[in-house]
Amino acid sequence: MQQDIAILGLGRMGSAMAKNLLDAGFALTVWNRSSDATRSLAAAGARVAKTPGEAATPGGIVVTMLADDAVLTETTAGEHGFGRRLGPGGLHIAMETIAPATSRHLADWHREHGNQYVAAPVFGRPAVAQAGKLWVCMSGEVAAKRRAEPVLAAVCQRHEDFGTDPVSANVVKLVGNFMIASLIEVMGEGYTLAEKHGLSREAVASFFVSTLFDAPVFRSYSPTIAADRHDEAAFLLRLGLKDLRLILGAAERAEMPMPLASLLRDRLLSAMAKGRGDYDWTAIAHGAREDAGLA
Amino acid sequence: MQQDIAILGLGRMGSAMAKNLLDAGFALTVWNRSSDATRSLAAAGARVAKTPGEAATPGGIVVTMLADDAVLTETTAGEHGFGRRLGPGGLHIAMETIAPATSRHLADWHREHGNQYVAAPVFGRPAVAQAGKLWVCMSGEVAAKRRAEPVLAAVCQRHEDFGTDPVSANVVKLVGNFMIASLIEVMGEGYTLAEKHGLSREAVASFFVSTLFDAPVFRSYSPTIAADRHDEAAFLLRLGLKDLRLILGAAERAEMPMPLASLLRDRLLSAMAKGRGDYDWTAIAHGAREDAGLA
Amino acid sequence: MQQDIAILGLGRMGSAMAKNLLDAGFALTVWNRSSDATRSLAAAGARVAKTPGEAATPGGIVVTMLADDAVLTETTAGEHGFGRRLGPGGLHIAMETIAPATSRHLADWHREHGNQYVAAPVFGRPAVAQAGKLWVCMSGEVAAKRRAEPVLAAVCQRHEDFGTDPVSANVVKLVGNFMIASLIEVMGEGYTLAEKHGLSREAVASFFVSTLFDAPVFRSYSPTIAADRHDEAAFLLRLGLKDLRLILGAAERAEMPMPLASLLRDRLLSAMAKGRGDYDWTAIAHGAREDAGLA
Amino acid sequence: MQQDIAILGLGRMGSAMAKNLLDAGFALTVWNRSSDATRSLAAAGARVAKTPGEAATPGGIVVTMLADDAVLTETTAGEHGFGRRLGPGGLHIAMETIAPATSRHLADWHREHGNQYVAAPVFGRPAVAQAGKLWVCMSGEVAAKRRAEPVLAAVCQRHEDFGTDPVSANVVKLVGNFMIASLIEVMGEGYTLAEKHGLSREAVASFFVSTLFDAPVFRSYSPTIAADRHDEAAFLLRLGLKDLRLILGAAERAEMPMPLASLLRDRLLSAMAKGRGDYDWTAIAHGAREDAGLA
Repeated sequence: MQQDIAILGLGRMGSAMAKNLLDAGFALTVWNRSSDATRSLAAAGARVAKTPGEAATPGGIVVTMLADDAVLTETTAGEHGFGRRLGPGGLHIAMETIAPATSRHLADWHREHGNQYVAAPVFGRPAVAQAGKLWVCMSGEVAAKRRAEPVLAAVCQRHEDFGTDPVSANVVKLVGNFMIASLIEVMGEGYTLAEKHGLSREAVASFFVSTLFDAPVFRSYSPTIAADRHDEAAFLLRLGLKDLRLILGAAERAEMPMPLASLLRDRLLSAMAKGRGDYDWTAIAHGAREDAGLA
Repeated sequence: MQQDIAILGLGRMGSAMAKNLLDAGFALTVWNRSSDATRSLAAAGARVAKTPGEAATPGGIVVTMLADDAVLTETTAGEHGFGRRLGPGGLHIAMETIAPATSRHLADWHREHGNQYVAAPVFGRPAVAQAGKLWVCMSGEVAAKRRAEPVLAAVCQRHEDFGTDPVSANVVKLVGNFMIASLIEVMGEGYTLAEKHGLSREAVASFFVSTLFDAPVFRSYSPTIAADRHDEAAFLLRLGLKDLRLILGAAERAEMPMPLASLLRDRLLSAMAKGRGDYDWTAIAHGAREDAGLA
Repeated sequence: MQQDIAILGLGRMGSAMAKNLLDAGFALTVWNRSSDATRSLAAAGARVAKTPGEAATPGGIVVTMLADDAVLTETTAGEHGFGRRLGPGGLHIAMETIAPATSRHLADWHREHGNQYVAAPVFGRPAVAQAGKLWVCMSGEVAAKRRAEPVLAAVCQRHEDFGTDPVSANVVKLVGNFMIASLIEVMGEGYTLAEKHGLSREAVASFFVSTLFDAPVFRSYSPTIAADRHDEAAFLLRLGLKDLRLILGAAERAEMPMPLASLLRDRLLSAMAKGRGDYDWTAIAHGAREDAGLA
Repeated sequence: MQQDIAILGLGRMGSAMAKNLLDAGFALTVWNRSSDATRSLAAAGARVAKTPGEAATPGGIVVTMLADDAVLTETTAGEHGFGRRLGPGGLHIAMETIAPATSRHLADWHREHGNQYVAAPVFGRPAVAQAGKLWVCMSGEVAAKRRAEPVLAAVCQRHEDFGTDPVSANVVKLVGNFMIASLIEVMGEGYTLAEKHGLSREAVASFFVSTLFDAPVFRSYSPTIAADRHDEAAFLLRLGLKDLRLILGAAERAEMPMPLASLLRDRLLSAMAKGRGDYDWTAIAHGAREDAGLA
């Protein structure tokens, strides 16, 4: 028999995950702030809820993939949130990129309300989500994680367990996003050094990506950075700035400087000031070209 | 019949390459500033020359893997250098990490003396060199490169051709070393952010290296950075500072800022000031831990 | 006849200003979260209020010099705040260092409640406040500023008018604090460069402060930085971090990178991580010495 | 009776100093690479030498104010330099901004040739030089400094003695130039933060320069930075880059990072890449406006 599950938040990532959950045979309820995103999923068999609370089943499972910390908190623990309806035995799997402090707050809130909570943020661009090939890092109580596993298995190629502290998975996610954003800057400066000496950015990029730097993240980002074309956004630059804010905020709470993260933030702010908020966040790399007088 | 070839400079990289050249059947002459390094190669069949000039055969091939730009320039074009003895038809394959400007100077010098010249710097740590698995980027005149290929084939798993301008390969090498050094900093900040939140550096490192960042350079460097152990040097930190000097020098000549390279230089200078010049250059990553009050 | 006035917040700055207001002949009511600070002022003739609301007189003047944005907002507009009691015709002079956004919020709140509001942050260390020699930058509606002037005149040597937008004075204050913190770093790096070459930090500092850099802020900060002694705090390092947060927050809202402010933030975070939160914020300059292997 | 003295290098600074030396009654010989600069001085009574060597009198005094380290070294110690002709008892007063290492080299060279040597670099823009109001920092052997004093007195308002090591004065000069360049960046970021919030750069600049930052260097630089007008060069940006190279070179030799100096270098390189090498070096401050999307 099919298990009931709800997913809230149907952006590009959430929609792709919803489709995979349907394909995996879950009886799926979906909810989204705007209704456009729900249509194709309804056509594919999903029930459409009118409110977050209506989406949740007492004792059921709710997956969230919402816009940011504030929306997630309101949707979960707000007056009309799903959290109160979820009730004892219910499970919340939070897959957004959020501040560790927000995750801590939600974990505490759920515990007080008798709910289970698993933090399970994901790595992968929308195309990867569609293919069900995300990487998930998860943390939370053992029983909660066990219950979450079949759900996660439907959307990812691998899920890594980072222990029982629900905050840990969120920290790993921020570390990863910091590392990805950093690589954009690394390629930006590196390829521009080559270009300023008369070499082809593409030739240099192609060499490195097939040798020392032959990793998914390089293969995925390098061609865009070599071409310095950033107008087709897989991940909006303004969301990248939000993530850097989370990263630097987490570092500040933990009392540590991250000079490279500060540099990335400065790149993003300059791009925002120049009206590039809706570009792909690989436009971070454009800063190095621009500073070199090439753009 | 065996081809005559000489190799000058028998540090850890040069020695490993010499051994591979012997194994590949070349009739090898070796020279090194100090004589210790020559013994085992002599025992393996190499002829030992007393001076760089004596190592070269008129019209022959000389491979160099020397300490720095000044030593290379003196050994090649100095009063007692091998360049004058090499003579018309001779080929110099320069495999060191040097400034593009030095390579330009050598290329011009060789052209004036009727010699061929190929820039062919390598990527790979000593263990990779021993296995004959280096990556080489080469550039220079077509005929010279063709003649260099069997030599390069004996020491590397792949050589990439970056065209006829001899300087180009040196630029690519600097770009690569910049990117590697950057990744050390990236991991340094990233793993420390995890550590400051109570996570295991190793667990986080292990996750990333087997997923998004599953590339040779991460696999090679990540464990050391996760463990924050840098006393066994595969590549001396003080040589890393030399490379950053070359990188920033090349960027300055080309008129471009590289803020991340500036950060790396600052990390290296601080490490030097604290007496870590003989550590491995992954100690760059220690800076982030130290600034976070952890060391 | 004496004018009634209340001052809320009796830290080192607030206490000094309160004393000056008494000396200038104002009938003064004081309030502070903890009662220690009120005693000497009571002895000098001040009335002591038990709550912020009790301190305010309908239609009167309230000066605030509170700890941070949250405390100020709560004390003003919270359930037990003075703002509702101040009432139509009342004037709030806010002299704290706060975010422009907080000042905007308070200005709007006061307008809705019929109160007048002037932003009037100050420059000067506690000793300067005691001498009544602060510099004030103020902004707000013309009538409100006119009414605030006698109050400001009692505590400062000069007040500069930055127009009718209440936020403007707060921005100028943040610009100034950014510039002061920057000079600490400038002296930190500069004097350490001299020290590393064998010169006396004091000799170099003394030369510059009496020539090119002969300004109040250098005369005030330079000796401490030359001596690298930061344990007697005139302004706590942890409050400096708060200010950098305000500065970078204001820059982020306005969409601009401030790389030097990012560097200062990193210095402060590292100092916090090393347990120096209660040092004077000139300890920013200690970072350069430490990175140079001298500390 | 007039004392014989020669000055080599008649740029804007050297010419102004030469005029002051004539006015002070010295019997002056001048030399410059190009002859244009010598005419007005010849008209004012100076003898014009055709070579540096011809300018020097055995046992006399030679003041240099030349373009850079290489020109100074060649002009002094080169085959046709003045140093050999100066001879025992001769005194070289080197007033350029040069590397400490260059000064060390010259000091050693002069000692070997029996000459006296004083390092005496100056602070002040050309207009200050014309007014004879430079600040000089000097170092060298006591007898040499005593002999140099009347010469220095003719061109400066004050000379500060930094001891017997000739290198010390050069270090102080680099520290000072670092501090000045830093202030340009400080004002650049600060005034732009104000501008982005709708304030007048000029109003903010004017407030600070007449209060906390009321020092010669701020009064001199602030109006240009407030106006963001940098096309009238008092000190060429490309020479500023040369100075940053000297500063960072001195810091590297002494093993210390100077992150703010690195930032300044990056600003300068970006300005060079954008064709601003002949602007005034206050164009460093333009970077902050540009990054904020305002230019």
